[in-house]
This record gives sequence, C-alpha cells and structure tokens, in this order.
Amino acid sequence: MDFEYSEKVQGLQKQLGGFMDEHIYPAEENYREYMATTENPWITPPIIEELKPKAQAAGLWNLFLPKAHSGGDALTNLEYAPLAEIMGRVLWASEVFNCQAPDSGNMETLLMYGSDEQKNAWLTPLLEGKIRSGFAMTEPNKASSDATNISCSIVREGEDYVVNGRKWYTTGAMRENCDILIVMGKTDPDNTNRHKQQSMILVPKKTKGVTIVRSVKTFGFDDAPYGEAEIEFENVRVPASNILLGEGRGFEIAQGRLGPGRIHHCMRLIGCAQRALELACKRVESRSTFGKKLSQHQSVREDIAIAFCNIEQARLLTLMAAERMDKYGNKVARDLIAAIKITAPRMACQVIDDAIQMHGGAGLTEDFCLAEAYNYARQIRLADGPDQVHMMSLGKQIIQRFAEAD
Amino acid sequence: MDFEYSEKVQGLQKQLGGFMDEHIYPAEENYREYMATTENPWITPPIIEELKPKAQAAGLWNLFLPKAHSGGDALTNLEYAPLAEIMGRVLWASEVFNCQAPDSGNMETLLMYGSDEQKNAWLTPLLEGKIRSGFAMTEPNKASSDATNISCSIVREGEDYVVNGRKWYTTGAMRENCDILIVMGKTDPDNTNRHKQQSMILVPKKTKGVTIVRSVKTFGFDDAPYGEAEIEFENVRVPASNILLGEGRGFEIAQGRLGPGRIHHCMRLIGCAQRALELACKRVESRSTFGKKLSQHQSVREDIAIAFCNIEQARLLTLMAAERMDKYGNKVARDLIAAIKITAPRMACQVIDDAIQMHGGAGLTEDFCLAEAYNYARQIRLADGPDQVHMMSLGKQIIQRFAEAD
Amino acid sequence: MDFEYSEKVQGLQKQLGGFMDEHIYPAEENYREYMATTENPWITPPIIEELKPKAQAAGLWNLFLPKAHSGGDALTNLEYAPLAEIMGRVLWASEVFNCQAPDSGNMETLLMYGSDEQKNAWLTPLLEGKIRSGFAMTEPNKASSDATNISCSIVREGEDYVVNGRKWYTTGAMRENCDILIVMGKTDPDNTNRHKQQSMILVPKKTKGVTIVRSVKTFGFDDAPYGEAEIEFENVRVPASNILLGEGRGFEIAQGRLGPGRIHHCMRLIGCAQRALELACKRVESRSTFGKKLSQHQSVREDIAIAFCNIEQARLLTLMAAERMDKYGNKVARDLIAAIKITAPRMACQVIDDAIQMHGGAGLTEDFCLAEAYNYARQIRLADGPDQVHMMSLGKQIIQRFAEAD
Amino acid sequence: MDFEYSEKVQGLQKQLGGFMDEHIYPAEENYREYMATTENPWITPPIIEELKPKAQAAGLWNLFLPKAHSGGDALTNLEYAPLAEIMGRVLWASEVFNCQAPDSGNMETLLMYGSDEQKNAWLTPLLEGKIRSGFAMTEPNKASSDATNISCSIVREGEDYVVNGRKWYTTGAMRENCDILIVMGKTDPDNTNRHKQQSMILVPKKTKGVTIVRSVKTFGFDDAPYGEAEIEFENVRVPASNILLGEGRGFEIAQGRLGPGRIHHCMRLIGCAQRALELACKRVESRSTFGKKLSQHQSVREDIAIAFCNIEQARLLTLMAAERMDKYGNKVARDLIAAIKITAPRMACQVIDDAIQMHGGAGLTEDFCLAEAYNYARQIRLADGPDQVHMMSLGKQIIQRFAEAD
Repeated sequence: MDFEYSEKVQGLQKQLGGFMDEHIYPAEENYREYMATTENPWITPPIIEELKPKAQAAGLWNLFLPKAHSGGDALTNLEYAPLAEIMGRVLWASEVFNCQAPDSGNMETLLMYGSDEQKNAWLTPLLEGKIRSGFAMTEPNKASSDATNISCSIVREGEDYVVNGRKWYTTGAMRENCDILIVMGKTDPDNTNRHKQQSMILVPKKTKGVTIVRSVKTFGFDDAPYGEAEIEFENVRVPASNILLGEGRGFEIAQGRLGPGRIHHCMRLIGCAQRALELACKRVESRSTFGKKLSQHQSVREDIAIAFCNIEQARLLTLMAAERMDKYGNKVARDLIAAIKITAPRMACQVIDDAIQMHGGAGLTEDFCLAEAYNYARQIRLADGPDQVHMMSLGKQIIQRFAEAD
Repeated sequence: MDFEYSEKVQGLQKQLGGFMDEHIYPAEENYREYMATTENPWITPPIIEELKPKAQAAGLWNLFLPKAHSGGDALTNLEYAPLAEIMGRVLWASEVFNCQAPDSGNMETLLMYGSDEQKNAWLTPLLEGKIRSGFAMTEPNKASSDATNISCSIVREGEDYVVNGRKWYTTGAMRENCDILIVMGKTDPDNTNRHKQQSMILVPKKTKGVTIVRSVKTFGFDDAPYGEAEIEFENVRVPASNILLGEGRGFEIAQGRLGPGRIHHCMRLIGCAQRALELACKRVESRSTFGKKLSQHQSVREDIAIAFCNIEQARLLTLMAAERMDKYGNKVARDLIAAIKITAPRMACQVIDDAIQMHGGAGLTEDFCLAEAYNYARQIRLADGPDQVHMMSLGKQIIQRFAEAD
Repeated sequence: MDFEYSEKVQGLQKQLGGFMDEHIYPAEENYREYMATTENPWITPPIIEELKPKAQAAGLWNLFLPKAHSGGDALTNLEYAPLAEIMGRVLWASEVFNCQAPDSGNMETLLMYGSDEQKNAWLTPLLEGKIRSGFAMTEPNKASSDATNISCSIVREGEDYVVNGRKWYTTGAMRENCDILIVMGKTDPDNTNRHKQQSMILVPKKTKGVTIVRSVKTFGFDDAPYGEAEIEFENVRVPASNILLGEGRGFEIAQGRLGPGRIHHCMRLIGCAQRALELACKRVESRSTFGKKLSQHQSVREDIAIAFCNIEQARLLTLMAAERMDKYGNKVARDLIAAIKITAPRMACQVIDDAIQMHGGAGLTEDFCLAEAYNYARQIRLADGPDQVHMMSLGKQIIQRFAEAD
Repeated sequence: MDFEYSEKVQGLQKQLGGFMDEHIYPAEENYREYMATTENPWITPPIIEELKPKAQAAGLWNLFLPKAHSGGDALTNLEYAPLAEIMGRVLWASEVFNCQAPDSGNMETLLMYGSDEQKNAWLTPLLEGKIRSGFAMTEPNKASSDATNISCSIVREGEDYVVNGRKWYTTGAMRENCDILIVMGKTDPDNTNRHKQQSMILVPKKTKGVTIVRSVKTFGFDDAPYGEAEIEFENVRVPASNILLGEGRGFEIAQGRLGPGRIHHCMRLIGCAQRALELACKRVESRSTFGKKLSQHQSVREDIAIAFCNIEQARLLTLMAAERMDKYGNKVARDLIAAIKITAPRMACQVIDDAIQMHGGAGLTEDFCLAEAYNYARQIRLADGPDQVHMMSLGKQIIQRFAEAD
C-alpha cells in the first residue's frame, strides 16, 4: 500500500501542470470573452486549435488511451486519473489534449470494438483531433437509465440498417466538426434476454434523415462549443457494416465503455472541486465583513475543512477504483465504479456550491468558473443514470455480499 | 390560533388561482419560446403587456401594497403572502399583477419615504405599470452584505448631488422601460455612527454618466427581461431634491424595506417549491424504470414526503413572520424575518433540486421551469446578504435571549 | 389565520410554566440523584407522588383528555399541545400532571372504546393516577411496524380469551404499580381483510402466564421508572369481556389512538429541543476557547440560528396538525399527522445533538438532560414505525394528490 | 501508488481475523451477560484474561507499538491501522491484544518520553498487560479542548511535585487494576509562551489525595470495565522524578501522542462502522414489511450504498494519514490527522445510526452492539476536542496554503 504517485505520474503531473500554467489559465479570460461574443458558438474556439499542436508536441496528447487496449507507452487508468484531474480544473482544457468526453469514450469504443474499416474511417481522424463525435444513447421520451427502456429502432433492410428514433443529451453533436455518431438502439426488441435487444451503430451526422433539432440547455448553459444536442433520426439508412461488434452487442459495449468514462468524469470533477476550493481560499482571504476577513470566521474555516476532507476522500476512492479496474477489470471493480459515480458528483456539487456561497453574488456569475462547474457536476449526477440507479445496484451487491457472509 | 386563511384571503386565492389557470399556465410555453427567439430580450414580452389590463380589470393589481402605508382595502402582509406564493409558481407571473421585485419594493420605498414631488414623478407611473425601476445597492468590489462596506459616493455640490461608484445585481435595470434607479451610497463616510453614513438617492437611468456595463448572468441565465445589471456611475449629477428622506437615512430606509421584501421573496419561493413538488409528483407517476413506476420506489416516496414536510413548515414560518410584522412591526419581528430568510431559500433549493433529480436529465433543461426556479432560489440565498450573515445576527439574538433568561 | 395562542391557552401556559418553575426544575437534581441511587428503580420516585396532589389542586391534571370525548372543560388538541411542550422540557414532568405516555393514550383508548365495566375497573383509577398501564403492541420477532406482521394470538375458548405471544417495548410495564396491559394480537389471522385480523384485549399484569422477561435498555438507559419491558404471554387466560370494542377492531382502535399520541409525543419533543437550545445558549455564553466566548464563534451562532428556525417550524406544523384533527378528525388530518411524525423526532435529534456538541464532553453525561433527551427523541423516530414507514404512506398520498390534479 | 495491503499485513489480517472468528465473536453474548450481571463491573471480565495468553501465544500482542520507537518487528502505523480496524469490530476486543486505549497511548508515551526508572516501574507491567493506566487531561470546569485553559496545578515543593485539580473523562481509571495515571497540569501558568505552561506527571492512583469521585456515564453507558472517571487531586504529592520529560514539556508530549492515537481511534471506528453495515445487511435481508424484504426497498439500498461509499472513503483517508505519519512524521501529516479526526467519527455516527434505523427498535437495545458503538463514535467526536476545533485549525491551514499559492 502506497499513497504516493509513481515517478512517471509525478513527471506527467509536473509537465501537464506546467502546460496549464503557461497556456490554459492565462487564456481563460479570453476564452470566456470569445464564447460570449462569437457568432457561431459551435465552432471550436481558435485558442483550442492553437494549443492542440503545442500539447501534441509536448507529448500531452491522447493521454486517456487505455494501456489495456493500446499498449506501449499508454497509461493505466491509475496513471491517467491524476492527469484527468488536472485537466478538469478548466472545463474546456481536456480538448486541448484530445481527452474530452465523449470523444475519448468514443475513441476507446472504436479501439476496443471497431472493425479495421471503422477504425480507418473514424478512429484515425479522431485520434488526430481532426473530427469530433457524439454518443447518442439517452432518449427524451423514456427513462433511459434503464437501458431496456430504449425505444430507438435499428432495422436490417438488405445491405443497410435503418435507424428511427429520437435522442438528446448527445454531447458534442452541435459542433460543426462533429462527423460521426455512435447510436444505441434496438435491433431485437422482443429478445427475452433484455440485454441482447440493443445494438450500437455508426451514423455519420450528415446522413440523410439525421436532424439536429436543437441545443438543449442545462441551467441556462448551452455548453458550447460542445452542446447537448437533441437529434431526430428518421429513416436513417447506413451500410450494415456500420454496426459495432455485431447485433445484440450494444449493452455489452455500453458496459465496457462505462468504467473508464466514469473514472474520467469523476477525476475531472475532483479537479473542478479542488479548483473551487482553492478559489474559495483566495476569496475568503481577500474580503472582509464586520471587521474581519471572511477567512477568520469560524464557519468559513469549517466549510473549507470539510471541503478539503471530502475532496481528499473522493480522490482516493476514485484512484482505488482506477487501480482495481487496471488489475481486475471492470467487472470485479464494478462496486467501486458505482461508488465513485455516486460519490464524486455529489461531493463536487457540495464543494462548488459552498465556494459559490463564499464568493457571494459573484460566485453565480460568469466572472468565475464556479456556476459552470456546478452545472457540469450536476449534469454528471444524472448522466448515464441518476445516482439512485447506481445506489440501487451497489446497495444490492453489498447486501448480497454481507447477508450471505456467514 | 387558527391555521385557516381568512374568507377574504380564500376569495383572493380562488380569484388569483383562477387567473393563473386561465391566463398564465397556458401561456408558459409561448413565453418560453418568445424569450428564446426574441432579438431584444430587454423588452417586456407582449404577453405580459396583454395580461396586465386583464389583471387590473380583475382587481388583481398592486396587491403587494402594504395596508400599513396605503390603508383602505390594501392587504396586510399576512393576507398578501399566500397570493405572492401563487404568483411565485411561475417566475414571470408577478409582473402581470404589477407585483414583481424590485418594483414592488421600490414602490413601497417611495410610498413610505418619498416626497410628494418624488411620488408624482416616479411612484404614480410605477403603480400604473408604465415604467420600471431598479435598486442599486450591491457592489461588485466589496462584500456589501456588510452595509458599512459600501463604497459608492454621493457628494453634495451646490444644488446637486454627484454620484460615483459601481453597482451590480441591479435587477431590472436592463429593461428598456426601466426609468429610475434608487441608488445607495455614502454621503458621510467618516461618520462615527456607521449606520448614518449611507443615503439613498433617485437617479433617472438616462442621466449622463450612468452606463449599463453589462447584463450579469447567474448560472447561465440572463434573467431577461429583468436582468442583473452592472452599472457604472461616473460623476452622475442629480438635483439635491432627489435624495430620499434626507442625508444619512439610507440604512434606515434599507431596514424598512427589507422586511416585506423578504416575506415576498420567501412566499414566491414557497410557490416555486410547491410547483416543483407537484411537477415531480406528476413525473414520477408517469415514468417507469426496472419494472415499476418511479412513484413506487420507496426512496422517491421518501423524498416527496420530506419535500412536503419542509414546504409546509417554511410556509407556516413565513406566514407567522408576516403576521408578526403586521401586529408588531419589523423590529419586533426581526428574529422571524431573519428565520425565513435563512429557511425558505435553502428549503426551495433542496426541494427543486430533488424535483430535478426525479425528472432525470430533462429536469435541467428549459423544457421545465425547474432549473430556472433553482437559479432564483439560489440567488435569493445570496440576495441582501448570504444566509450566514442572517444566521450570525439571529444566532446572536437567540443566545442573548436565553443566556440571560435566568 | 392567527398565530397567537388563545387567552385560555396563554393562561394555562403561564400557570403550568409557573408550576414548572416552582416545583419541577428545582427538583431535577434530586430526581437524578434519587434514580441513580435507589434500589428499586421501578417504584415511582417520591417526588412525583408528592407533586401530584399539588398539580391536581392547581387544576393541572389530566389535561390531555380530549374535548371530543370527554367534553366540558376539556382541552382541544390545539389547546393541549403547547402544554405538552412545556411538560416535555423535563422528561419525567408529564407524570406529575397524569399526562405521561402510555397512560394518557391508554386512558383515551378506554374512554373512547371501553365498556362501562372496563372503564370502572381501569379508567377510573388511571384517571386518578392510582395505577399505571402498558400498551403491548410491538413484537421482538417481527417487523411490527407493518401491523399485519403481528404474531401474538388471541383465541376464544369458551368464556375466555387465551393470549400467547411475546411483546417488547411495552413502556411502563416495568413499574410496580402497572396493573393493566392493553394487548394487541390476532383473533382472526386468516381474515382476507388484513385490517380485521387484529383485536385488543385488556390483560391484568398479574394474570397467570404473564412474565416480565426483562427491562430492555435503549442506548444505555433503562428508562426507569417507566422501562421498556419485554413480556412473555403464555396461555394467558382472561374473561371474554376484556376484549376492547369487539373482535377484529384492533387495527381500528390503533388508528384512533395514534393521532393524539403523535401530537403529544411531538410536542414533548419540541419542548425537549427548545430546552436543549436554551441550555446551549447558556453554555456557549459561559465558556471560552481560543480567546473568545463560544457564543462569539460564527459557527456556533449559525447552529443556534438553524436550531431556532427548525424548532419554530416543527412547532407550527404540529400545532396545525392538532388544529386539523380538532376540526376535521384524524382521517382528514392524516397527512399532517404523518408529517409531524417524520419531522419532529429528526428535528429534535439534530437540535439535541448540536446542543451536546456545544457542551463538549459534559453534554453526553448525566450532568445534563441532553443525552437522555436524545435517547427519547431517537426512540420516537422508531416508535410506532420507523419514519420510513410514514414517509412511504405520506409520499404515496402526496403523489396521488398532485399526479391526478389535472 | 498501490491500494493493496502488503503481504505482511494480509497475513496479520488473516491471523487476527481468524482469532476474532474463533475466540471473540463467539464470546460476545457471554461477555454481554457477564457485564449485565457482575457485581463489580470494574474488574476485567474473566473472558478477557483467559484470551490474553492465547493472543500473546499467537504473537498478536502489543501490535500497536510503533516501529519508529520500538524498532525490530514492530509495525508501522500503516501496517497497524487495518489491524486496529479488525479489533474495533468488537468494542472490548482490543484489550485481548493489549492494544486498548488509553493504555496503548500511555505505553507509547512512556516508551518515547519516559526515563529508564519510569519505564521499569510502569511501562514493563503495562506491556505485559498486568496493570492498567489512565490519562488525566480533560477537566470538567473548563473548555479544555483549548489546552491553555487547563487549570490543574503541578507545583514543585522540595523533592516533590504537588498536584491539585479535577479531571474527568479519565478513561480506564475506574478499573481495579488501574495503577498509574499520567496527569496533565500547569507548572508554569504565567509563562508567556502558552505552550510551555503545561507538564505531565506520573501519579500512582493509590497516592494519598487521589479520589475517584464517580464514574461518569455517557448516553447511559458506564463504559465498564473501563469507565470514564472523574478524579479529584487534592494536594497529591509525588517525587519530582515522576515528571515526564521535564517541566514545560506537557504540550509537546500531548502533540506527540495525539497522531497515533487518532489513527487508532479512527481505524477502530471504521471497524465499528463496517460491522454495523454488515449487521444491517443481514437484518434487512431477514425481515419483511408490506410484502417484501426490507432489502428490496429502494431507500434501504440507497442507505447501504452510501454507507459503503463513506466507509471506504474514510478508511482510505485514514490509511493515507498513517502512511504520511510513517514517512514524514506527525508535523507534516497534521492536515491529514486533523482530517480523519473530523471525518471518521461523523461517518461512524451516521453509518451506525442508519444501521440502528434498519434494525428498528431492536437497534437501540443491548441485543445488538449498535447503540454502544454509537456511544463510542459520539464520544470520539468530542474526545481531545470537539471536531469544530480541528476544523478551525485545518481550515486555517488550507486557506493559508491556497490563498498564498499565487
């Protein structure tokens, strides 16, 4: 047992932290202004495109790629996690390193489950950061946290599949350079094995019948340039070879993809929370009321102390989940993966909300990254299922484990 | 002791509820679409202007006007409170009845403290709903929850006062028809009595030197058509007769205005929370996961039950605060006024957040009023001082009361 | 709507408060010492027997008796509630006024449902405070919060009923002068109407086959002189006339009894919490750490403020529940009765726990009433069903109410 | 970074777990009965004395001894922590392995700071488990969480020191075989360096002038056979050589002792909480209400899931604090030591309270270890300072760290 990051990781943390100091934090203000004034928010801001080659040159590129599947110098989940945390300190930073969701998850999916043809067509340009992608799973009309509720249909017709359905919360699909969508639907809705009904299929965004209905806002944010797209699929026809892995494998792919995705999101949230805490510390030290600094009020100190404790704990839990995934795989680690999905977003919501409170009215405004960070944390509490769903399954596991222990 | 609304109030509730059913709820969808597509969000949406005469004709106009100061048929705080709750169910509804903040507070202020000249110029058109107003108190550069921190200066020069300073969170000042600002500043910053340093002065928005710097967003909301304006006052010169009540009376006016304002905000928040609860009930009854309705999950029932309990309690506390103000005045009721300022926004944040959770991803979007209601509740936790400030003063009062009891 | 206690109630509050000041608070220390050193803790402490005639002489006797059933000068629930609060400030005070549980509930049950014979035998001496009683409902072997789980059997044999079963948490049954038990069991376990299976029967404690197994402690408290008895009923034979109201009416009686019982417990808990708050205020004003009084620490003020808010709210909710019961009966008021059962014990646990914290280590000891008050509050969270059971039924009601509203 | 226990630790866990399975769990019921019926609860129960030689023979003896000071095969904090957790599963188990507080802390103190003479007299028999000891620091009359508040005086008179003062919460001092007390007092109350005023001195319990005033209960528990003693020191005269380390070194010793002590308490609490969770799992699987097992209610699953998450997190945090102490010493690790002091007792209180709730009324009784475990956790939230004191100092550290970061 050892709580020190490895030398390799410490080196990467230093390098990545240096890049953040040099290029990202100083650009935050400009980024904000650019996004507030641009006419087309769905085009990647120039600053990101400018920084990408620098990140690539520095070797800080595609760091998320899982060692288990890409081998070589690739990082384990445990090694990548602390880097995702650092990127998470600025909401738009991950993309500079080609590590942003959902592209990272989509690249992993293609790497693990794609055919050579699929990889050539889509994985290569994604890895190069040339195109972007969406993951169309959630549906507006159903409680799709229960995957068996999915109603999008994928029907084989001759050499094609025909897709019909409506999706939303397809992050990134608003982007102009989003070229490809991974769509989850049902090829076999009557299969008695409820986990064999679903398939995933690759649908180029420009295919006829794909309509971007709107950008859905959350808490007033359009989340540009990524966006949460609502998409209509109406008789969308793609070649049969676009199916991923094969018919009926959709649920299996979703499971495989979720583990690392959750680690990434949770570590980014820990970065968000850590940054909120640091901003709060600066704020309370610089403002005074009723004859003393905010930092001298006992209740402020208590809130800061609790935030510190909760961030540390969530970080450790997430790192342990990452290590277990590396060592034993998603299936064995599923209790810890559920645990971080439950813990990290709630922790982040609480820490960020407290930081907002310490900033007074300013905390809610665009002058600080806090409100937007809160929005991200609140989304993740709901993304791939409200946390109650994960508590249900984790609770069930734990009860089983101990009720039968004797 | 009697927990039944009076017959008069029940009649008004029925009338106002009927107006909401007939005119407001059916217009919500259109209002949302209008605001999403309008080119100038700072113009009052036509639907509001259309409904105003109807409300006026129905006698549902200026209901907030305090009996203590306008006499006649005017309502007491206790009578008005349940009506404010009903209006609060739709964020934009209050304006239809000319009861929206900050205009209601500004009208009260003018009614209580304005000269005849000031009343003629500003109160009359406000009461008629013809112009709108702002209340410029909070400053971006100071923790202005401590009023002695205010740095805006008001200096007498001959027949004029000259105002210099920067304000923000001046709700409503973005509106095209916002004509008048009540500005809090210091006329006597060196007065050893820290509560005599401040004055309030009337500044027409079009006065030279008044610059609307920007609309500040909270979460991602611009709060249009009201807006949270940031305003620069640079050598703004107004006639000396624009001072309210007299030099050094600013703190006193602020105190007088706060009591009813808090009752109103809290009751609106209770309306928000109640609506969120009702929407959640409908939602959980209409969606299913894992083979049963959401409404059949025990944890959903528990959250609904707790929300009901907390809304009921906050409502009663607010009503009691209103009654105490009516009977004994702001000063005697200050413990209860602080208590509702602490209680209602937190309660509303919690209930609305739970309702969001029960709606899944949809709860965060503009398809429901929940995210925007959350934004309102979260703002009010910070408006006129973060709740910690009120806990400090309430805690102090209570300790004093009981520590000396023997 | 009126939040002022009636003149009648104010008079009684003054009188009862005066009695507490004169006789109860000054005796607390002695009571504690007596209980700590007595050889037989199941005998009523002499101080209580001494004070009873004084309370009776002052007209402060059997105040709990419900106007609806005893008429005349009797108090409504709304009138009695604030008196129960005052008695609740000292855990053993209620008995001085013959208002302690479970005797009060048992007297109500006999008054409402007893035959003349039953009343003569048991109600009269109970009303005079000469004997004590127990209510044997909860069972150790079943989750008896679901009344259909009850396994105690009551079987008719000729002119008798024969009772077999095991009960616990039979408060008061440890007392030497506890003469009579009301026992809940099943006379018709196979009735398809699950609420017709149960009956209640009167069993004198000295009947052959009744064995007091032990006094069950909660936390470390034996709750003497009341006690939480575990009782074995083994072929206990009583005359058929001992049945209450008739076979199959047990559930109905339980329902009738619960409403007032909950009001009483909740108001006593509010008294407990209020007293804890007052003690905390005195404590934090009298102790210093790190150069200032505890009362000057911001976090202490916040905790005191929140406690004040939560007590006020729970008090109002309980009073409203009492009023609704008076006006509309238990059935209509069942949502509010559930709401206070959920709210008051949790509130009291929290307030008392915070008061303990402010007392430091002393708060946990017998030098203050706080630990024992916490034990009482924690018990009531579980008594007649863990609060989850009440949230389940309240949540269901509320969802139904609003889901169907359109 | 590695979250796996070392092979050495895994071996010890297995061995210790086996001992618990074979000797401790099976004896719990007997232990409870013995303590409930023994005439003198301050004599160590025979079962403990019987098991001690077995533990010693198995090499499971004095495991707490810190490697840093006793060298050889001794365990690091990181190695000992998971063993303390296992012992913590049964409140009285630690003593079987001679690892119970406060003896373990007292032995460490003597080992680190004692003279050879002191070691021979007291450390040797303590290490052999032949005598027991107390640590007299907390005072009833002062908020002694601020060590400068301590009022016990230690005055040099010739070859002796004379001790006067009153202490309480001196755990273990009720025991018949408690022979030696380490007493904290002031030798130099006027020293301007507030941390040089205190000294520690060894006082045999039988010294003239030492009076055990009473056993203080917490939540009704007398905590026998350990007990929380209140002790009067009245002109207690001991040889000058009994001073520990030297005059004015008391605060320094206290600091040195606190780090490991907190790790031990926190790990024992994690063991308590883990056991409570496991008991809850068994309970909810074995009871049914309203037609289904408790374990099938969604809210039960949620509470179990949250408990699991919180235990895991607190365990990791405590282990990291242990590792940091081993590597960098108490001073560098003080933020994490404060963090676990804040986190673990609150977590344990919450988890145990939830487990009580899932047990219904039974959870509060002596039939389960839950109420007593709650008492222990609640005590530790207050022991060596209410958690607010630690939040104050941790908050201050964190603010300083980040406010100055730029």
